[in-house]
Amino acid sequence: MARVYNFSAGPSMLPEPVLRQAEEEMLDYHGCGQSVMEMSHRSSQYEEIIGGCESLLRQTMQIPDDYDVLFLQGGASSQFAMVPMNLKKNGRADFVLTGQWAKKAYSEGKKFLSAHAVADSSDKTFTYIPKLSLETFDPQADYFHICYNNTIYGTRFHELPDTGRVPLVADMSSCILSEPVDVSRFGLIYAGAQKNMGPAGLTVVIIRKELVGNAGPEVPTMFDYKTHADNGSMYNTPPCYAIYICKLVLEWIRDKMGGLSGMKEYNEKKAKLFYDCLDRSQLFKGTVEPADRSLMNIPFITGSDELNKKFIKEAEAAGFVNLKGHRTVGGMRASIYNAMPIEGVEKLCAFMKEFEAKNA
Amino acid sequence: MARVYNFSAGPSMLPEPVLRQAEEEMLDYHGCGQSVMEMSHRSSQYEEIIGGCESLLRQTMQIPDDYDVLFLQGGASSQFAMVPMNLKKNGRADFVLTGQWAKKAYSEGKKFLSAHAVADSSDKTFTYIPKLSLETFDPQADYFHICYNNTIYGTRFHELPDTGRVPLVADMSSCILSEPVDVSRFGLIYAGAQKNMGPAGLTVVIIRKELVGNAGPEVPTMFDYKTHADNGSMYNTPPCYAIYICKLVLEWIRDKMGGLSGMKEYNEKKAKLFYDCLDRSQLFKGTVEPADRSLMNIPFITGSDELNKKFIKEAEAAGFVNLKGHRTVGGMRASIYNAMPIEGVEKLCAFMKEFEAKNA
Repeated sequence: MARVYNFSAGPSMLPEPVLRQAEEEMLDYHGCGQSVMEMSHRSSQYEEIIGGCESLLRQTMQIPDDYDVLFLQGGASSQFAMVPMNLKKNGRADFVLTGQWAKKAYSEGKKFLSAHAVADSSDKTFTYIPKLSLETFDPQADYFHICYNNTIYGTRFHELPDTGRVPLVADMSSCILSEPVDVSRFGLIYAGAQKNMGPAGLTVVIIRKELVGNAGPEVPTMFDYKTHADNGSMYNTPPCYAIYICKLVLEWIRDKMGGLSGMKEYNEKKAKLFYDCLDRSQLFKGTVEPADRSLMNIPFITGSDELNKKFIKEAEAAGFVNLKGHRTVGGMRASIYNAMPIEGVEKLCAFMKEFEAKNA
Repeated sequence: MARVYNFSAGPSMLPEPVLRQAEEEMLDYHGCGQSVMEMSHRSSQYEEIIGGCESLLRQTMQIPDDYDVLFLQGGASSQFAMVPMNLKKNGRADFVLTGQWAKKAYSEGKKFLSAHAVADSSDKTFTYIPKLSLETFDPQADYFHICYNNTIYGTRFHELPDTGRVPLVADMSSCILSEPVDVSRFGLIYAGAQKNMGPAGLTVVIIRKELVGNAGPEVPTMFDYKTHADNGSMYNTPPCYAIYICKLVLEWIRDKMGGLSGMKEYNEKKAKLFYDCLDRSQLFKGTVEPADRSLMNIPFITGSDELNKKFIKEAEAAGFVNLKGHRTVGGMRASIYNAMPIEGVEKLCAFMKEFEAKNA
């Protein structure tokens, strides 16, 4: 069996030790004679898994006690609606438009309140993070929304806006668990699991408790954060297996990667390797403003569509898969999430040098 | 490794060959060097999986072409809201109250339209299916809702109500794929996967195309069936791994169980074995009207709380797990879904006879 280096934007690589443990426990979890997929979610075994996952996440991210941790379904796309449906009070919210997902959150927000775009980097195909000026913020907004890391365009916020009393809401789907964050700066963090946490089908919400319980009667029960907060994410059957894998990933971060500070160091090393490789190349170049570069997603181009295609094809044959860029950017994109080993980046850089030499 | 017989109401047993295949393919699916959990949902490999799952489901259930098949998230509990939000026209719907889940669909329905309970079997703790009289039906209702099989109370519809032009909507979470059904009788079928289809985290909706596309602008994008129908269930990242397991389960039904007619025969044999065992016992007795008995969920009691407890405890030690009944019924419940082998039922019956002999 030859495992490949998978640079997909998500779902993407999982740590190999996690997959090996899942493989081993597939028919019999800890001697209970069942797969985790077969367990009653009300069983003591499963309660240990979901409870363990929550404690580990709280510990790993240092989530303060006045925050709820919710294990939900429906992806970030469901949060685009759940956030306004639950946080609406004055009926206004501010959005920073830094890419396609940020725009989707904004458009969906418009269904439920008056959404205001305070900044927008679409003028340069979202290759930078716009400067934010406090004067444009609405101090009466129900929340201020950012997409912390932009998967498609490869940018990230390096500084968080100071939104004062307005709850800062962040889509962290493509950067959660990649480095320490100060959770107390946020009113609400949400993330689809399929990049750094586990398989698709799990959405994690971290929400300041005072923001829970304000949904109106028109909000579907399953879209009310209170439903899930009051029931320990077990109002109905949760995505049990995805939560189990997330727990294994969190154990891997704790035991093998040195927690989030170790993870950050590792991710910075990988990203530096790759950006250095781009910056030294005569053929390849990154598409993003250097100051706003993401640690996780790195779009790059050669300047020739033909060469891009050739590169993607030859890279795939060499075991570097899913390097094709998003259609709105073109070229290539390497997503190097937590589970991408540094060897994957080193080998890809070596492959790029070879390719450059042959195609100069 | 000793696998147990798991009588849980769901999540519950999966076919062992399915688990073995998932185990084998965990680190490398068909030589592609990735786990299914790691695959981009836009990759050709994954498109084959989700496409294959849909074709197999269409073939297995003989779903007519004028129906959409949707792979969603959020469980049946989300459907309790999605159905009224999408099917509302006149603003009225009829519900048959045959248990806790049927009541939840009804209560949630009330948030969005005028919900009418046309029949109710709560007077006898839902131990029977109420007779339905056409006169009580609202011919202008937007839909007529039933819970086809009642997981907690162990009853099922043996005949479908003739609702004329009013779309019949059925929660089939605990009986889908257990026997052939005439899909054309329904406007919409929904089912959480975690009983007969696969792991928790996947919800299947089968909907007549003419019922898609009627949601108002206030409906969250992710709660609009049209969003998912227009995008082949890939508007956002679907619950990829659960869909893969569902495909393996469908292959098992086709290749090992003789399709749904073979499945029905097998399930009837298992249920008959168990009901015969109850009917011949002096100690154990079923709680449900014989005419309305479920093929899937069988609640039973001894008449003594103490003996019930003793039985559950000793059964568990003998490898028959999750036999405790729902708190609203008490006693025991054996859920014998598709993946419960007939040996499990035979052995449980033998164990019950022994227990009875010792405790007479």
